[in-house]
Amino acid sequence: MKKIINDPNQVVQDMVSGMAAAHPDELKQLFGTTVMVKKNAPIANKVGIVSGGGSGHEPAHAGYIGKGMIDAAVAGEVFTSPTPDQIFEAIKAVDSGAGVLLVIKNYTGDVLNFDMAAELADAEGIAVDKVVVNDDVAVDERVSRRGIAGTVFVHKMAGAKAEQGGSLEEVKAAAEKTVQNVRSMGMALSPCTVPAAGKPSFQLDENEMEIGIGIHGESGIERKVMTTAVDIAKELTDKVLNDFDFSGNVAVMVNGLGSTPEMELYIVNQKVQSILAEKGITIYKTFVGDYMTSLEMAGCSVTLLKLDDELKQLLDEPSQALAFRS
Amino acid sequence: MKKIINDPNQVVQDMVSGMAAAHPDELKQLFGTTVMVKKNAPIANKVGIVSGGGSGHEPAHAGYIGKGMIDAAVAGEVFTSPTPDQIFEAIKAVDSGAGVLLVIKNYTGDVLNFDMAAELADAEGIAVDKVVVNDDVAVDERVSRRGIAGTVFVHKMAGAKAEQGGSLEEVKAAAEKTVQNVRSMGMALSPCTVPAAGKPSFQLDENEMEIGIGIHGESGIERKVMTTAVDIAKELTDKVLNDFDFSGNVAVMVNGLGSTPEMELYIVNQKVQSILAEKGITIYKTFVGDYMTSLEMAGCSVTLLKLDDELKQLLDEPSQALAFRS
Repeated sequence: MKKIINDPNQVVQDMVSGMAAAHPDELKQLFGTTVMVKKNAPIANKVGIVSGGGSGHEPAHAGYIGKGMIDAAVAGEVFTSPTPDQIFEAIKAVDSGAGVLLVIKNYTGDVLNFDMAAELADAEGIAVDKVVVNDDVAVDERVSRRGIAGTVFVHKMAGAKAEQGGSLEEVKAAAEKTVQNVRSMGMALSPCTVPAAGKPSFQLDENEMEIGIGIHGESGIERKVMTTAVDIAKELTDKVLNDFDFSGNVAVMVNGLGSTPEMELYIVNQKVQSILAEKGITIYKTFVGDYMTSLEMAGCSVTLLKLDDELKQLLDEPSQALAFRS
Repeated sequence: MKKIINDPNQVVQDMVSGMAAAHPDELKQLFGTTVMVKKNAPIANKVGIVSGGGSGHEPAHAGYIGKGMIDAAVAGEVFTSPTPDQIFEAIKAVDSGAGVLLVIKNYTGDVLNFDMAAELADAEGIAVDKVVVNDDVAVDERVSRRGIAGTVFVHKMAGAKAEQGGSLEEVKAAAEKTVQNVRSMGMALSPCTVPAAGKPSFQLDENEMEIGIGIHGESGIERKVMTTAVDIAKELTDKVLNDFDFSGNVAVMVNGLGSTPEMELYIVNQKVQSILAEKGITIYKTFVGDYMTSLEMAGCSVTLLKLDDELKQLLDEPSQALAFRS
């Protein structure tokens, strides 16, 4: 394992501290935690939005803190759910009295720990609600689906609605509509190594790729012979399109998993756009880059979000988050 | 070689086409070229700014196109200078009559080809001037130094000055001051593979790193035993600090070379900030991320830019570039 780190067991603390030092005007680290909070939170009368999960997905989630997006991000250990007490600290830090929405990726540990934190907050009289993101179509049953890059759109829509002065119920409804309308599918060329583990989570030969990869170093649902960008884009996009009726307008995200050159993501995008054009689907906006990573995994995911007038308008709202400006 | 591409000899064309498709409101591709231009260029009465060079450094350079930054980016083949005729097309596309500044990284081919393009433009009566960026302190003699991540700051300052209505002379002066005040130093954990070459440009063992790396897959000036983030940050930062008097205010950039997780860049930043604090240097603003990459190379560079009042104010001007929002 070759990584630019100090102690493999301190990477999250070191990262959070380095991030707080980099962005003192935008972010503050809650003392004694790995919770990052918007500098001026809580914002009077605004619903607070808390996200988070295991670390290793940077810029998720702290990169999405900012005006128009989320208010706090809870960083667990690498690929490990944050603890309920840390999530509770985040909730308290962003609650202005207007309530707090939790955006949770659909992993057992995350759902359990965010739920426990919500109970703690409830006991203190803080209004808390949640949405669970499950956009990964690699898994068949909707209830078991993981939350991956589509989560970024949920942050965006919930954040915009909150910025517009939406109530907790309205912010949740916008987030929930986004969850219902978003689907993703990923693939990997190479695994990643959790620092504390010291070795890759799986092995791939020079001519192999994994289709249906998650973002926690898990192997995919199918191992295949490596092929072209056109074939990869087609396989991912078709799988997403087959899962939901995307006719009308969509937002597209071609997301890198960590070590994929932007060049390759744009090459994938070229084909994604032509597939959508052939199907008569209108692309409202496209995002290409590293939005939800898996440490240094090589690979990409394709996300489609179906947009109605409300979601278009929320997507167009300005965001000041470090990793998502619009 | 495992890459998400189609034809290794078509990666730049495919990338540029995928980029134009992704950002139709911001960018346009000049027909029959790999030149990317700001959608609404030329801007009346504004000095145009053209950058570019070999591809493989994404988001450089097209990611820096946008209001407040550059107007066009010329994409050569991977790690290869663009041709004079393509650069000339870019110059013509952004000239509003107010003149055009060329931002050139200090490589023989780039300097030669941008100079030839400037001559072509001059023959057509377009006022053209240039700055050559040479921020890489890995090389001893200033005249031989390569242009690396510091180039992004040159784009920013020149772009802000042009947006403020500066004349070609004033825009050049702001860019030139930035060149004089910026220094960078990089290191790598792993090499990268040029698609058309099909194999890595050098080899590194599991316990080795290269110090003083460039951004074209070249090996560094010194091979060392892999060490901690703290030691790496210290080595890079000290080398930069020893080359120039940075007392006062600086902007910091901790740049990833392509496959370095953001987590590691923030861990490096933690130490960079503490070194600067110990020296009494004031950090005005910090940038952490992939700004000037070398395909999928793992590693990072540290850039310091000394700021006076003018440069602070130019740094604070808004930028709408895709890869540099401020």
